[in-house]
Amino acid sequence: MIKLSEISTKAPSGMNEKETKKHLEELASDIGDLQHVMYAEGKKSLLVILQGMDASGKDGTTKNVFHACNPIGLDTFGFKKPSEIEFSHDFLWRCHALAPKKGNLMIFIRSHYEDILIQKVHHWIDDTRREKRMKSINAFEDLLQYDNKTTVLKFYMHISREEQLRKLQERIDDPKSHWKHNEGDWAEREHWDKYMEAYEYAFNNSEIPWHIVPADDKWYRNYFVAQKVKETLESFDCKLPTIEKK
Amino acid sequence: MIKLSEISTKAPSGMNEKETKKHLEELASDIGDLQHVMYAEGKKSLLVILQGMDASGKDGTTKNVFHACNPIGLDTFGFKKPSEIEFSHDFLWRCHALAPKKGNLMIFIRSHYEDILIQKVHHWIDDTRREKRMKSINAFEDLLQYDNKTTVLKFYMHISREEQLRKLQERIDDPKSHWKHNEGDWAEREHWDKYMEAYEYAFNNSEIPWHIVPADDKWYRNYFVAQKVKETLESFDCKLPTIEKK
Repeated sequence: MIKLSEISTKAPSGMNEKETKKHLEELASDIGDLQHVMYAEGKKSLLVILQGMDASGKDGTTKNVFHACNPIGLDTFGFKKPSEIEFSHDFLWRCHALAPKKGNLMIFIRSHYEDILIQKVHHWIDDTRREKRMKSINAFEDLLQYDNKTTVLKFYMHISREEQLRKLQERIDDPKSHWKHNEGDWAEREHWDKYMEAYEYAFNNSEIPWHIVPADDKWYRNYFVAQKVKETLESFDCKLPTIEKK
Repeated sequence: MIKLSEISTKAPSGMNEKETKKHLEELASDIGDLQHVMYAEGKKSLLVILQGMDASGKDGTTKNVFHACNPIGLDTFGFKKPSEIEFSHDFLWRCHALAPKKGNLMIFIRSHYEDILIQKVHHWIDDTRREKRMKSINAFEDLLQYDNKTTVLKFYMHISREEQLRKLQERIDDPKSHWKHNEGDWAEREHWDKYMEAYEYAFNNSEIPWHIVPADDKWYRNYFVAQKVKETLESFDCKLPTIEKK
């Protein structure tokens, strides 16, 4: 049973920032190598889901953890408000279409979970609908796993409300970050407690477990995710196909 | 519990062919009108699934029952052997992508059920995989219904082995039907009993019930399907949107 208020948002004491950053570079390079073999083998696939409040570091994690991957086998999609055609289908329609093919690594920045997060917080769906959607999500992720050898790896970027404030303000203060500024983020921030409840519901009712990533310190957040990704790719035990010599 | 050998493939005695054909024309016209209103309203949708052995009349039913529909809100897709990109995803991937949007009527000629029919008959999947896929199918069809107001209407074209033989032979004897001839159909015919078992499994484990259509007599088959489609569209109670007069 996950209770977010009981989990630290900070790097564990005793971790050394400089060393950890060096370690991250090695991990990112290993991830690139492992992803290359997964792509070449073409049998398994990985779906990484990054969720978290605004400014919790979903984009930054993507850049820092996956920059050594071969773009040909790597896809990223950032889910925004559904388009008209997406709204005219069930909530999983647009996500299923983007599920990774065999050999590929797909990163969902936000995902089908939004449909039980923001939609619940704003009362666009009720408890019954949330429960049904949660069941559909479990069935969907199960399908990907048993029928297409897709492993679903889910991360919640656990940032404190104070750190979010600092980062949102930074987007206003630093001209180079203005493009990230969004008035809506400040409004959503007011629903913090409701979001925490909605996230906890998702974590505690998902069949595939979530990783809660302490995300106040970028360097630790990146390292944490990279380590899990590397472990997962290693467990696939993919092999480069070989040709029999004649 | 459906047992196909206990269900007649013929039109009930006492039905008049000429009258029934006339009635079909009225039904087809009503279906066209109802589909128009469903499209204009844009809130509900209908997914018609047609399954059956080769030459059981899936294409003919499509033509005879839906010919009065407005093509703009009507889509048809005939599922064949999956393509390379389709094979590199889970079995529901290509079907989910084609699920009807709000307001539309979609006809699947063959469908996701093939993945527990031909695949089971040829032992490409085992019992465990069939069971998992059946569960995924139920979850998928449930999702369409509760999250997108899509009604799933499923028909099995119940043809006798003798009538199939006659129709397959006709495709060889009549030059205008040569395009329908396929050597593979004759090979699949040899697995008749295994197919009946596979179909019965699907019918008896589907949460949304199937309609078993006596299909030896085309005129009755068309009428049977048209009646169910009309009933279903009527039950939607769609309304043309109106403008408030100023």
